[in-house]
Amino acid sequence: MPLRVDAERMRADFEALSSFGATPDGGVARTTFSEPHLAVRAWFLERGRESGLETHVDSAANHSVVLPASEPGARTLMLGSHLDSVRRGGRYDGALGVLCALEVVRTVQDCGLGLPVALEAVDFTDEEGTLIGLLGSWAMAGILTKEILAAPRGGRDVLVSELDRMGLTEDGLIAARRAPETLAGYLELHIEQGPVLERAEVDIGVVTGIIGSASFSVVFSGEARHAGTTPMDARRDAALGAAAFVLGVRETVVTGFPGCVATVGNIETEPGSFNVVPGRASLRLECRSLDHDEQDALEDALTARARAEAERHGLEVTVERLGRWEPAPTDVAIQEAFERAAAALGLTSMRMPSGAGHDAQALAAITPAGMVFVPSEGGVSHDPSEHTRWEDCVNGANVLLNAAVELARASV
Amino acid sequence: MPLRVDAERMRADFEALSSFGATPDGGVARTTFSEPHLAVRAWFLERGRESGLETHVDSAANHSVVLPASEPGARTLMLGSHLDSVRRGGRYDGALGVLCALEVVRTVQDCGLGLPVALEAVDFTDEEGTLIGLLGSWAMAGILTKEILAAPRGGRDVLVSELDRMGLTEDGLIAARRAPETLAGYLELHIEQGPVLERAEVDIGVVTGIIGSASFSVVFSGEARHAGTTPMDARRDAALGAAAFVLGVRETVVTGFPGCVATVGNIETEPGSFNVVPGRASLRLECRSLDHDEQDALEDALTARARAEAERHGLEVTVERLGRWEPAPTDVAIQEAFERAAAALGLTSMRMPSGAGHDAQALAAITPAGMVFVPSEGGVSHDPSEHTRWEDCVNGANVLLNAAVELARASV
Repeated sequence: MPLRVDAERMRADFEALSSFGATPDGGVARTTFSEPHLAVRAWFLERGRESGLETHVDSAANHSVVLPASEPGARTLMLGSHLDSVRRGGRYDGALGVLCALEVVRTVQDCGLGLPVALEAVDFTDEEGTLIGLLGSWAMAGILTKEILAAPRGGRDVLVSELDRMGLTEDGLIAARRAPETLAGYLELHIEQGPVLERAEVDIGVVTGIIGSASFSVVFSGEARHAGTTPMDARRDAALGAAAFVLGVRETVVTGFPGCVATVGNIETEPGSFNVVPGRASLRLECRSLDHDEQDALEDALTARARAEAERHGLEVTVERLGRWEPAPTDVAIQEAFERAAAALGLTSMRMPSGAGHDAQALAAITPAGMVFVPSEGGVSHDPSEHTRWEDCVNGANVLLNAAVELARASV
Repeated sequence: MPLRVDAERMRADFEALSSFGATPDGGVARTTFSEPHLAVRAWFLERGRESGLETHVDSAANHSVVLPASEPGARTLMLGSHLDSVRRGGRYDGALGVLCALEVVRTVQDCGLGLPVALEAVDFTDEEGTLIGLLGSWAMAGILTKEILAAPRGGRDVLVSELDRMGLTEDGLIAARRAPETLAGYLELHIEQGPVLERAEVDIGVVTGIIGSASFSVVFSGEARHAGTTPMDARRDAALGAAAFVLGVRETVVTGFPGCVATVGNIETEPGSFNVVPGRASLRLECRSLDHDEQDALEDALTARARAEAERHGLEVTVERLGRWEPAPTDVAIQEAFERAAAALGLTSMRMPSGAGHDAQALAAITPAGMVFVPSEGGVSHDPSEHTRWEDCVNGANVLLNAAVELARASV
């Protein structure tokens, strides 16, 4: 008989949790270290204390609720996600994972299972990137570098003043690193943030890895000319190269890289007036793959396509890589534990990559890590209308619970 | 023997004229009613007065230098262009036409030809559109409407305050209309602003008409989705429709509308982040034809193409026409007079449309109008690097002179 979480308690806590930073449109606004974010983190620890669990806040402000192991000196199996949100976010992204982790820890405690490892429910700091993105999990994994701290996503000044305001230091962030030998693994439940599970009518997604990504600036250059007096055959129109490349990006991925994605999200033309032939067109491109070598090949193919379209349209082109995150495969034993747990609960499951970044990709650097996805209605996320059916939330929590118990017992 | 202008006098005046609003990069900055613009207009009248010619400023601030006819009550043959420039303009656009008009009037005066019509060299107000565009010529042609005044290109507040500052009124602008029966025609010399004459190695362009144009806002709508978690086949990417349309615009014109032009000068995607699939892509399109029916057909074809690309990519599209200027054919007798003048001077000429707008298109509404083009190096205009060889400037002035004299003599 598979174990089951206390769905009523979890539901009440979900409603309470969703009230922190609640917005009138049904979403939440809980950017890192905002007043509602600080409040929800305090609430999370209080829920743990109420249940007689230990609580812990590390020097990267990661918040934990801990059920100690039956034996002292045991390793820790971590379960977690993040309570911060994007500026106009939904109730589920991150928060559901922390709540399920808490509920799993409480259920194990309630059942008196006496596991041979400690169970720790973690709320990681700044996953969404108000300051840096994956701040807390990078810190815990020991991969938060001085370079990252020097050029944070939200700006260096904001980082410095926010750390100061919160009584944190850069040395403290780096000192939050956990020794890998103290960890038994990391499990994370998250909403899918895409349409795959809903379209396939499958209950549970077992994540095979978190895909890598790279972002590029691509600039086509031609000649800005009078749109009335310059015949079509005398033009070097930068917008034509950009347009051909946008279509070429899709064609390249669809025909040569199934399972990958690539996106041109931004196009700017100069001078940008409809009575001047564009002399310059700038694009922002990103592409994602689950495999290191495939990511290399995809980047090469897209760069070659940009050069080919430039040549075809008599333009110059520059391609500059802005950043790259390596793909992070998940642990196969954890994938199998999730599949067994789902099957035991009578739920359907499918393996799938994560196209979005998650704290699990940081933890995968130091401990076996795995993720389980629950469906997102319409694939919507990072939006107040983000929604997951409550039944799916409970299903996910039960899969997390049973996999965690199996892995904890097997990990001695 | 064809007549010839005083090239030395014209050269000295061109240098003097180019010093008004001169910029370090060799261009000029003479936006409407700026200090250098007011100064160059005063200089223009002063050059006329120095030659013993009459001067006139109408209630639309059009500035004229006039050589009266040999008989009172005669009609007027106008020659002109504009002394204002775009913000960062070149020395030739507009200014060369006014200078050549002045030089033609002075040469006719010097030669004592005693023409049966008055010759008037006109500097039209605000051709380039600091305030409205073609302001003075529209006013003179009686086609400046309350609607145009209500929504001027430079903004209503700017128009109102600038008119006030210059002692002008909207009623005055409208009252600047000339009675068609007082006019014998309008001739304008202008730089080509395109590469056609230079590429064909032809001295003189005889303008067959000023092409019409229409501008459109085209908006493709899909769904903004997470760029990592939304598979390629689950996307409704607005940028794909926009890109296909940009290429389709070119294909439509090249294959079906030779001699026409169409341009997408501006593309904006929303939300405009490279990690979000664009949910919306907005374009600014314009297209130009020399013929009314062809312009209709071109607009229809481009609109149909937008709808076809939207359907092909699973998007919605809206196409809104922002404005339309009708094509303005030039007078055939004037075209022939320019051709005879060029031939008599040993110059090569070719017929060509004007892809850009000019004061002549306004005057064509009330009197036979014609234009002659001289080559633009590299087709460049509206830029400080705009350049026409001095020999070409003199050739143009001589063609304008001989055609004006022939037409003046024939117009009784």
